[in-house]
Amino acid sequence: MSIYIDPDAVSRLRQYEMPGKLGFGRVIAPVMFRAVCQDGCWSRGELVPYTALSLDPAAKVLHYGQSCFEGLKAYRTPDDEVALFRPEKNAARMAYSAKRLCMSPVPESLFLDGVRTVALYCANLVPANSGESLYLRPFLMGTQADLTVSASASYMFYVIASPSEAYHAGNMRLWVERDDTRAAVGGTGDAKVGGNYAASLLSTGRLRERGYDQSLWLNPANRSSVDELSGMNFFAVMGEVLYTPALNGSILEGVTRASLIELARDRGYQVVEGEIHINELLKQVASGVCSEAFACGTAAIVSSISVIGDAGGSYRLSKAPGPVAQSLRQALLDIQEGRAEDRYGWMQLLGAITNI
Amino acid sequence: MSIYIDPDAVSRLRQYEMPGKLGFGRVIAPVMFRAVCQDGCWSRGELVPYTALSLDPAAKVLHYGQSCFEGLKAYRTPDDEVALFRPEKNAARMAYSAKRLCMSPVPESLFLDGVRTVALYCANLVPANSGESLYLRPFLMGTQADLTVSASASYMFYVIASPSEAYHAGNMRLWVERDDTRAAVGGTGDAKVGGNYAASLLSTGRLRERGYDQSLWLNPANRSSVDELSGMNFFAVMGEVLYTPALNGSILEGVTRASLIELARDRGYQVVEGEIHINELLKQVASGVCSEAFACGTAAIVSSISVIGDAGGSYRLSKAPGPVAQSLRQALLDIQEGRAEDRYGWMQLLGAITNI
Ligand SMILES: Cc1ncc(COP(=O)(O)O)c(C=O)c1O
Ligand SMILES: Cc1ncc(COP(=O)(O)O)c(C=O)c1O
Repeated sequence: MSIYIDPDAVSRLRQYEMPGKLGFGRVIAPVMFRAVCQDGCWSRGELVPYTALSLDPAAKVLHYGQSCFEGLKAYRTPDDEVALFRPEKNAARMAYSAKRLCMSPVPESLFLDGVRTVALYCANLVPANSGESLYLRPFLMGTQADLTVSASASYMFYVIASPSEAYHAGNMRLWVERDDTRAAVGGTGDAKVGGNYAASLLSTGRLRERGYDQSLWLNPANRSSVDELSGMNFFAVMGEVLYTPALNGSILEGVTRASLIELARDRGYQVVEGEIHINELLKQVASGVCSEAFACGTAAIVSSISVIGDAGGSYRLSKAPGPVAQSLRQALLDIQEGRAEDRYGWMQLLGAITNI
Repeated sequence: MSIYIDPDAVSRLRQYEMPGKLGFGRVIAPVMFRAVCQDGCWSRGELVPYTALSLDPAAKVLHYGQSCFEGLKAYRTPDDEVALFRPEKNAARMAYSAKRLCMSPVPESLFLDGVRTVALYCANLVPANSGESLYLRPFLMGTQADLTVSASASYMFYVIASPSEAYHAGNMRLWVERDDTRAAVGGTGDAKVGGNYAASLLSTGRLRERGYDQSLWLNPANRSSVDELSGMNFFAVMGEVLYTPALNGSILEGVTRASLIELARDRGYQVVEGEIHINELLKQVASGVCSEAFACGTAAIVSSISVIGDAGGSYRLSKAPGPVAQSLRQALLDIQEGRAEDRYGWMQLLGAITNI
């Protein structure tokens, strides 16, 4: 289906001036992509100026949390082309999240049209420094206006964008969350849905008061093995072996996680996907068997973990930033930013960055 | 603080014509109450015409599920007065839900102003048939526009209303949900937040295909004791004893549940709040020891359960509609609709229904 490009969107882009300081997710691009769905039928997609959206106060998303989202990045290559990293992975994950909440899924072609159109038209907004990028945020929500607890018949799909620095560049201090859980057994932990993030805010608030950065969530079934962080997957390094929690139904299947596993194996590391018992892990950190741990995600790329705090004390990783994290981060960024050969076929080049 | 009444709201009410067929939550009153909060400071409340609301596409509620809500009813008394049932309970529960999601709570006085103002101005929209009422829906959401996973600094509070019939008047067929869970241990099960309801839709969809009405959720910690329904609390009757799950952190503390416990005790029933093991319960239903079960909530009032289905078979309650459910339903409605003396001080009379 053809995409409608609103001339006002183009003129908004022409007039746009990038602020000097970016941060993460704070500067929002002046255009957005949108499409609507009624009873399973999707409208044509359109690129329009970024403006407030209009929702009926009884829209399901506002009451019953029927919303899911994705996060991926557009990168600038050395030849000033704009490129996406594995966007079909995000399309598939969003379809999975939608299904979990009984929402009409966004067809893969519409999802890809959305992220490509925004990335291409916003090509001048893709920052040039390594580690910076144009963060793309596709999201889907139920808009039907009645108060019954039931799946919406109508949906809105948007893609908005934010020129951003990497999230959490430095070393992170984690706190083992022993009380709250992020996800339920048979819950929505493996879907990227709004409610998971709302539920994590209280834990994050508590640990920030104690000088920590992020919660380390435990598995809801056993409450003793590590799941992930609120927005990143977890890895521990012991010698030449990388350990990461298996896809157990309560963690999100990160695109970065999957890519790092491939990169690490190709670099001769053994990668074990399995259960990581938190008490074991803390002992291994204390004894130095585990010298390094890191978290990964689209926003943060790869971030070393310097400390894991728990009621019993605080455990310092001997290598932070760790060499494995640093080399994997660099290898991934080299592919994403077009400095290294893309042997995996991960990148989608969208074309040259020209003045629109 | 004074409340601003928009003259357009009043003229919208004057022109409004009630549709003949109501249903539940489908007909929406033409006015609404709203207030906004910035950095913990609340604006004055206003009664305005019901119109689409304007949200930044990056508003936290749309991405990270920062939303909570309440449900309560305005009733018409025999003297044509409009009355609310224990609204301060809903105010307190909404404050609790807000805290769980790190949201700025709505002050009790603002919450009460909101529900009272809507109920009074919409007094002509309170249906007269027993069991019908004006359903009030207060809700709160985070509106700050940036993509960081963090608590919003700004909020919108709304009260909308729906002239409604009772939800699920007939006997209900429940299905024991053994796979999914509605809430996590240390999750948001005891708060009335959007994500809980989104997570329940898939289960409901599955069981509807099998001819059932509602999921019977099990406790996420043991997955063997009964918690509640997606929007109602659960009771089982054995002889003169009523059993209902204790407030264990994963079920919502229903206002109807609390009120029925008082009513039942005053009628000479013993009420036990504790664990109800599902396999035990099914055996007791099969043997006739448990002759009756019912669910309760503001929307549904009290609804008898006729069948509990499980992978192993389908268990029929011998009394459906059950006499205990029917008499408690009537006792509660008699108070709510002003036919019985309000010995508990539950009702708040707002004044006479006159033409505004
Ligand atoms: C809960 C959670 N885990 C892991 C990740 C990492 O996933 P990805 O690498 O696809 O960004 C994210 C972020 O997207 C997340 O929200
Ligand atoms: C999950 C859940 N449990 C129980 C109830 C019943 O609570 P109340 O009696 O306050 O309406 C509701 C509805 O409000 C609910 O959503």
